[in-house]
Amino acid sequence: MTSNPLYLPELREMLSSSDKEGMREFCEAVHPAAAAEFMEGLSADESWAVLQHTGPATRTAIFSFFESAKQVEMIETLDREEMAELIGELAPDDRVDILKDSDTEVVAELMPLVPADERRDILRLRSFPEGTAGAVMTTEFARIHETATVQQALDEIAVQAGQLETIYYLYAVDTSDHLRGVLSARQLLSAIGKPNLSVGEIMERHVVSVDVDEDQEEVADKVARYDLLAMPVVDQEHRLLGIITYDDVLDVMREEAVEDAQRLGAVDPLQDSYLNTPFYTLAWKRGMWLTILFLGALLTALALQYYHVELSRWEWLVLFIPLVISSGGNSGSQSATLIIAALSAGHVSLGDSLKIVRRELLQGLLLGSFLGLIGFVAAYGLRGNVGDALVIPATILLVVLSGTFFGAVLPLLFERLGQDPALMSTPFIAGIIDVLGILIYMTVALTLLAPPILSG
Amino acid sequence: MTSNPLYLPELREMLSSSDKEGMREFCEAVHPAAAAEFMEGLSADESWAVLQHTGPATRTAIFSFFESAKQVEMIETLDREEMAELIGELAPDDRVDILKDSDTEVVAELMPLVPADERRDILRLRSFPEGTAGAVMTTEFARIHETATVQQALDEIAVQAGQLETIYYLYAVDTSDHLRGVLSARQLLSAIGKPNLSVGEIMERHVVSVDVDEDQEEVADKVARYDLLAMPVVDQEHRLLGIITYDDVLDVMREEAVEDAQRLGAVDPLQDSYLNTPFYTLAWKRGMWLTILFLGALLTALALQYYHVELSRWEWLVLFIPLVISSGGNSGSQSATLIIAALSAGHVSLGDSLKIVRRELLQGLLLGSFLGLIGFVAAYGLRGNVGDALVIPATILLVVLSGTFFGAVLPLLFERLGQDPALMSTPFIAGIIDVLGILIYMTVALTLLAPPILSG
Repeated sequence: MTSNPLYLPELREMLSSSDKEGMREFCEAVHPAAAAEFMEGLSADESWAVLQHTGPATRTAIFSFFESAKQVEMIETLDREEMAELIGELAPDDRVDILKDSDTEVVAELMPLVPADERRDILRLRSFPEGTAGAVMTTEFARIHETATVQQALDEIAVQAGQLETIYYLYAVDTSDHLRGVLSARQLLSAIGKPNLSVGEIMERHVVSVDVDEDQEEVADKVARYDLLAMPVVDQEHRLLGIITYDDVLDVMREEAVEDAQRLGAVDPLQDSYLNTPFYTLAWKRGMWLTILFLGALLTALALQYYHVELSRWEWLVLFIPLVISSGGNSGSQSATLIIAALSAGHVSLGDSLKIVRRELLQGLLLGSFLGLIGFVAAYGLRGNVGDALVIPATILLVVLSGTFFGAVLPLLFERLGQDPALMSTPFIAGIIDVLGILIYMTVALTLLAPPILSG
Repeated sequence: MTSNPLYLPELREMLSSSDKEGMREFCEAVHPAAAAEFMEGLSADESWAVLQHTGPATRTAIFSFFESAKQVEMIETLDREEMAELIGELAPDDRVDILKDSDTEVVAELMPLVPADERRDILRLRSFPEGTAGAVMTTEFARIHETATVQQALDEIAVQAGQLETIYYLYAVDTSDHLRGVLSARQLLSAIGKPNLSVGEIMERHVVSVDVDEDQEEVADKVARYDLLAMPVVDQEHRLLGIITYDDVLDVMREEAVEDAQRLGAVDPLQDSYLNTPFYTLAWKRGMWLTILFLGALLTALALQYYHVELSRWEWLVLFIPLVISSGGNSGSQSATLIIAALSAGHVSLGDSLKIVRRELLQGLLLGSFLGLIGFVAAYGLRGNVGDALVIPATILLVVLSGTFFGAVLPLLFERLGQDPALMSTPFIAGIIDVLGILIYMTVALTLLAPPILSG
């Protein structure tokens, strides 16, 4: 999101000349998301001054599209009374997110100013652990008793439409709030000619729902799989607690994509954005993996130590050590990336394992042969001797084959064990192949350079 | 998506005993997505046999949730007439996707059997290039003239509700089909008490829309940013051509996440899923990057060749070459992953560049010092000499610092140049740091092991 510098001077001009009509028009002329974007360059104070000139609904809508850092800054620095009022008007899930990020002292000052109903709702929503369905859900949704008529449902929805996050599903409950069925706005509108039918007669009884403590990633998968606009959230007794709307699912999917990328890059997923993660937390989350990889890499030193006699006899072998291990690491990273991404997108499953491994071995054969050819030319150029130079293509072919093989097999193995295959980060796979690459290199060199007949 | 083996034996049993009622119940008892999932283990023939026993609407709904490979198999192998009928009933965007993947001869046989209206629509949708808004949009949506009344709009929507992909937005057009405004079902329902108002009076005039040739990733970003259920697609003259619904946006986001992961892993993004990509296309898409990385890695051989005198004087230095370069590569991969993911999620922007680089240098200092300490212990263990062993921690500190520095700077540089920062794949960054690592290692070794006073 890049801020649009075109509107900023005009906005500042309106502010300094107190052009109330101009600011009102600005707020109401475009989609609230666009207005929020145009105001990106304004300070918390200035933004609030602009928002004064429009009604509470538009003000809240624009505020809800600000970046979360700006929202928190406004909550923390502006007038407590006004902010408490704003908080009361925000969608339940949005305000809980903002309050979670705000200074606890400020929140303690604000809470008594928020109306009692909203306050209770905030406290309840805050109690759900981060990353669960409960923490993502909102509590404002259309709920109706299953015995109500279509006409009553239509009247109810017309009244509530302005306040609810989504009116596209009407959830039918019994007297103890158990989820009994769902009626889409589409079904309701189709029944407009039969106002006396009861909701229970036309509703869909097989409702897909999620448990309040279900992982948000699984919720997002379910919403995407069932093409739903909103997913009801229930407790253990199947009582309706809230709903998760598709726009929050989009946010969850973005979050999870970032986490997957971090796992693949051997960083323990950050809870927060990069800049908001405290320095030592960040250092720990990468340091632990870096240390594991470092200890693994120490094995390469031991492997080379084991072959030190051969390495001093054929000193030129040293030249190609980095080339050999990077070839294995790169081909392994590629295979792992392809297989992990295909697994997480649902393009392949464990049932395809044999097909995948066979395919990767053939790819390794082709790619390894080609790179080996380049390696042969380079080695011949440096050594001027066909016998020596042959060590390199043979090694590279075997190392690339190991790379594609382990790059495919290790993520599949993790998937089979019920672990996240992205834990098999590409640096981790590259590390395994580093050690293997040295063993292959030395074995090939010994075989080709010191045939048993000559050394005997 | 794992298939549920519980239902399969029952389904096969029903099929062999021709239990029509049982199969009908199975199709209608659960959400179509769940029914499709339960049928995953059935062949194309068997699936179609089960679907015979429910009405066309449920049949089409379940079919639309099958995996695309199964849909294509069914289209290609089952009765042409029946398939043509099914195609006519599918959502316009779904059927175009399936036909794109199907055998061209089969499509040529099927098309004349599809009703003329649908056929024209298919041909038009197929003409939009893959990856553009036009290729993702659907052409069935609620459209109404801006002068219609609320009552007419309600009547119209009640009639069309069953056939349209989304009725949650009603698009208002003028007589030449120019997009004039949008009315959400929410606004329409709120106006239920004023049936004589015209759509033009209550509609939202500031409609966010996308161009038909806009990139699908930008469309997905816009929908997510504006929290929309559907996005109208217009041509150059702002005529309404179709809409993109949020469920297709979810699919686009998944696709783009896979592509980003592939770029990060140094694979040119695949157009198709892993198993559907032809063997030589796959080999080319990874081979080109592997070759570039290989040529880069050849530089390490030249660097080592340059230092061959020093390496034969202090042979033990060879032991730590892989350790040194993998430390740099891993810390560089981590930084690059963090920065690229933060940039693509919009958590950081170019304005934060200085802050990011400063942060990464401090992280490098901390992580490099810690790894250097472990390295010192290992080197002392292998060499038994403090003077020699000191080369390793000094090198590792500098190499890790270079890793975090270049890992942060190169993606930022690419972003600045208007390129996709994910092109700075982690193997690419690791490759640059490999060469640099050897230069640093040799320079440190020369400085510490051969002080000018002794060598003079």
